[in-house]
Amino acid sequence: MARFNPVDHPHRRYNPLKGEWILVSPHRAKRPWQGAQEAPATQTLPSHDPDCYLCPGNLRVSGDKNPDYTGTWVFTNDFAALMTDTPDAPQSDDPLMRCQSARGTSRVICFSPDHSKTLPLLSLPALEEVVTTWQQQTAELGQHYPWVQVFENKGAAMGCSNPHPHGQVWANSFLPNEIAREDNQQRDYYREHGTPMLLDYVHREQADGSRTVVETEHWLAVVPYWAAWPFETLLLPKAPALRLTDLDADRSRDLALALKKLTTRYDNLFQCSFPYSMGWHGAPFNGEDNPHWQLHAHFYPPLLRSASVRKFMVGYEMLAETQRDLTAEQAAERLRAVSEIHYLESGE
Amino acid sequence: MARFNPVDHPHRRYNPLKGEWILVSPHRAKRPWQGAQEAPATQTLPSHDPDCYLCPGNLRVSGDKNPDYTGTWVFTNDFAALMTDTPDAPQSDDPLMRCQSARGTSRVICFSPDHSKTLPLLSLPALEEVVTTWQQQTAELGQHYPWVQVFENKGAAMGCSNPHPHGQVWANSFLPNEIAREDNQQRDYYREHGTPMLLDYVHREQADGSRTVVETEHWLAVVPYWAAWPFETLLLPKAPALRLTDLDADRSRDLALALKKLTTRYDNLFQCSFPYSMGWHGAPFNGEDNPHWQLHAHFYPPLLRSASVRKFMVGYEMLAETQRDLTAEQAAERLRAVSEIHYLESGE
Ligand SMILES: O=P(O)(O)O[C@H]1O[C@H](CO)[C@@H](O)[C@H](O)[C@H]1O
Ligand SMILES: O=P(O)(O)O[C@H]1O[C@H](CO)[C@@H](O)[C@H](O)[C@H]1O
Repeated sequence: MARFNPVDHPHRRYNPLKGEWILVSPHRAKRPWQGAQEAPATQTLPSHDPDCYLCPGNLRVSGDKNPDYTGTWVFTNDFAALMTDTPDAPQSDDPLMRCQSARGTSRVICFSPDHSKTLPLLSLPALEEVVTTWQQQTAELGQHYPWVQVFENKGAAMGCSNPHPHGQVWANSFLPNEIAREDNQQRDYYREHGTPMLLDYVHREQADGSRTVVETEHWLAVVPYWAAWPFETLLLPKAPALRLTDLDADRSRDLALALKKLTTRYDNLFQCSFPYSMGWHGAPFNGEDNPHWQLHAHFYPPLLRSASVRKFMVGYEMLAETQRDLTAEQAAERLRAVSEIHYLESGE
Repeated sequence: MARFNPVDHPHRRYNPLKGEWILVSPHRAKRPWQGAQEAPATQTLPSHDPDCYLCPGNLRVSGDKNPDYTGTWVFTNDFAALMTDTPDAPQSDDPLMRCQSARGTSRVICFSPDHSKTLPLLSLPALEEVVTTWQQQTAELGQHYPWVQVFENKGAAMGCSNPHPHGQVWANSFLPNEIAREDNQQRDYYREHGTPMLLDYVHREQADGSRTVVETEHWLAVVPYWAAWPFETLLLPKAPALRLTDLDADRSRDLALALKKLTTRYDNLFQCSFPYSMGWHGAPFNGEDNPHWQLHAHFYPPLLRSASVRKFMVGYEMLAETQRDLTAEQAAERLRAVSEIHYLESGE
């Protein structure tokens, strides 16, 4: 029998943050594709779109008029998934039909007044303002809710209904599934090893380098060993930090730079506005010390082969196990191979 | 404060089979949609397509020629995600970079030689043959592998690269995540209550009726109390059965009928060939008794508002928690409201 080679041979890798496995089938990338094609976002948009409900000065469905904002701008979602004043759901110990109260709020964060921009195309000062806004929202909502989810859905492929650069923040009266999982997994690791899992991981990846995509003074972005999405990345501060609100001016400024570099590499990979969902995970606001936690951002981009062919997480993935078609190391290598200057700004 | 009303007020419901929560935000269904539209499958296809690699008599990429099959037909996937003879991955106790061997096979199951058909459009005898084929594949592969995943990806929205009616079967040398989870959850319930979770559940749903979509002599399809996808259903035998291979002729025949009724209702909901991923879960072939298990099929359809607007499980869902925009009871009511005669066959 041949020797095992991770680039040719199917194998499983374990995601210690979620506590689950991923099936890696690297040879699958060779199969031909006859399925659905995405509409790649390569067209140029106007700086102001009179029909966009996020552009400055325009009317929203609610009838409210947007202010003439110049930097970032935050407002409560007109169709929020959560409300601050929902009455309590009836208590129930029914093991088959358990129900629980859920309160919260959801806000929209416009990253820029310029309809045509995306994160990689913002200036560093503008990106710093995005980071500051994330921090302010987290600090404010964290006073009232145990969980504050900052995230961005980018691109039509990720259900984003408007190309205007924006993200969201949802505050929750409960600890959502994924956070409860990461909390448990990190706690177990800390109990066993006495160090935060993701801080140990950052050091391992710095020493290794084969999965590194971007490294700045304070931040590291890698395709994690256990990546599920083809070009998934994990963005981590290299030193301890529980939450976005723990970063000093230096690390916040450097985060803007890391975001610029990472999202630029994404756009350059297939020369399109690269779709993804991204968001931040940090220690919950539960009044505990949380020494097992380390702040991080997940980027989950759907594209696999080109600007128009995505990975479908369907049948086998939904019913059995996440499956990927290239190794984490192959994905990182491809993201390292493209420029850190955005293809729309390379000018020559 | 107003009284809690599950049709107006956000709340969380618990999925006891996965051990996780779902955020239900029923009022969200009211928001306008400006995002991506799917291409609905409403066109009629020819019975034989010379370019289809699944039609009888045609050539595949592998160079193999399909036989002139007349019923179902099974062959090994030309781009299988798993191979029978992968060498062992190196053993590793590394808690951050754990790797495991994975062997198996994946096969394609053509449901019919007729390129233009889908499950709801097959005759009952043809559907019975599909059930028999699922059973034969499960029996055969279950002799060599602890897990056999029978599934179908239907429609371009679910990554299906070919409209020819077909499903797949993947056999695994390991217990995939989702099965390991269901196995644990069902075992815990059985230990505590002394009865199989899903058998208790079936009786509860029969007595209630508000989530029932289809009921035949031996089968029940409900939108489960904890549904994640808008029109997700769970199809269960009403009496104990560990696996597809445990069904006698009567229950197998009746399953064909239940499948016909359920998939017809799906197509009729938005008058299109309704996309979904579906698949079977039963007791693993692990040499144990598995009294905690009950056979079931999951149907995960992506559509939300119409034939062209789907639910996106993105940002918040990927990073925090699955969120749905209508209650399970509302979804079941809509599926009950449409006819059990297929819109293409209603004739008048
Ligand atoms: O094998 P197929 O149908 O070409 O591929 C489809 O189903 C597989 C199993 O769910 C997925 O891994 C692929 O992403 C999807 O495109
Ligand atoms: O609020 P949006 O951006 O309109 O909606 C989008 O993001 C939400 C949060 O991830 C999802 O629940 C929706 O399915 C998606 O379309």
